[in-house]
Amino acid sequence: MVNKEKCKLTAARAAVEYIKDNQIVGIGSGSTIAHAIHCLGEKIQSTGIKIMAVPTSYQSAMLLTEYNIPITTLNEHPVLDIAIDGTDEVDPNFNLIKGGGAALTQEKIIDSAAKKLIIIADESKKVKFLGEKTALPIEVIPMALKTVTNKIKELTTEIKLRMAVKKLGPVVTDNGNFIIDARFSKIKDPESLEKELNVIPGVVENGLFVNMTDIVIIGQEDKVEILEKK
Amino acid sequence: MVNKEKCKLTAARAAVEYIKDNQIVGIGSGSTIAHAIHCLGEKIQSTGIKIMAVPTSYQSAMLLTEYNIPITTLNEHPVLDIAIDGTDEVDPNFNLIKGGGAALTQEKIIDSAAKKLIIIADESKKVKFLGEKTALPIEVIPMALKTVTNKIKELTTEIKLRMAVKKLGPVVTDNGNFIIDARFSKIKDPESLEKELNVIPGVVENGLFVNMTDIVIIGQEDKVEILEKK
Repeated sequence: MVNKEKCKLTAARAAVEYIKDNQIVGIGSGSTIAHAIHCLGEKIQSTGIKIMAVPTSYQSAMLLTEYNIPITTLNEHPVLDIAIDGTDEVDPNFNLIKGGGAALTQEKIIDSAAKKLIIIADESKKVKFLGEKTALPIEVIPMALKTVTNKIKELTTEIKLRMAVKKLGPVVTDNGNFIIDARFSKIKDPESLEKELNVIPGVVENGLFVNMTDIVIIGQEDKVEILEKK
Repeated sequence: MVNKEKCKLTAARAAVEYIKDNQIVGIGSGSTIAHAIHCLGEKIQSTGIKIMAVPTSYQSAMLLTEYNIPITTLNEHPVLDIAIDGTDEVDPNFNLIKGGGAALTQEKIIDSAAKKLIIIADESKKVKFLGEKTALPIEVIPMALKTVTNKIKELTTEIKLRMAVKKLGPVVTDNGNFIIDARFSKIKDPESLEKELNVIPGVVENGLFVNMTDIVIIGQEDKVEILEKK
């Protein structure tokens, strides 16, 4: 059996190679990104490069702090040199479903501010059509939970409010909202679904990342596959 | 000179006529709606009808409480019988610009949940094209202020972060976000602008209310003009 953590680490290490001295770097969230922060900490230590990071969640901010990597904000640096993020699914056009960690809104804000977005993942995240494996996370203002749910039910009946663990009731995001996970088995036109969902009153953002990714790095145990956008 | 408050009151009184016993009623925000809540309180007192109200802001919730009008939520009643709201501009197709009071997001959630949406206003709110008189309010997640501003600058250069009065710094909405006021002198296609803005990462909602309004009541000092959607 493949060691997934090893694959993630391999991808993370390859991605960190792209980070250069003096860059402002967007840092995604999730387990693969935890490896990237670790590798970035090592790289800073060994090479002495100076960078500043913009985190996409409390998780990544806390990890960056642990590794003494200086943090800045998008309001100080609205254009990032590069961003590195993970994904839940990636299709052949480099479109993504993200939000398994409930950080999709900040990830989308930060990833879309980067001149170059590098997505790191293991082999299992590759799909032919988005929606094949995972549900689509949608961030919703709590007061609109029921009305948004009813509108999404016109598109798919498989909808779940994401419930928290180690906290009563639903997951509350870093922005104070809820997450609805909506299952679409094959998303044929991610661009129009992204717009259709975002225009529903009460939807803050959804996990479709369309036309944003420049490079996808798929980690295997002992090598990486680097895919660049044509 | 026309007495604007009297016009607003006349419109408010006419709108409250539409509210029947046992209805669940969405209640907008703003100075015209303050009159409507007053009239609704009187109507309940004099007729004994029972209704429940879903407020769109702390402002309207507080006023409803003052008049002892029972409050409920959209999660308990996701379909409203009727909603009454004000507006900053209304065009000949009943499309609106709202958000002068920074309550646009909740207003849009609640107004769009109503079977019948009645908009009350005085004559000065009528425009040929949306954007003629007022800027378009856009609710933005604070961390994305700069990136969203930069993206909106591609559409118009007249953009202002709304600053608070009696509070340092920017206005913070009831959802904890900022408001950007963006001036578009003539919005030719409100439906596509609404979508274009909402798909910018960090934009929570914008003040364009398209294809939502059923009835517009324009108050004059001693009479009302009632416009119904064909």
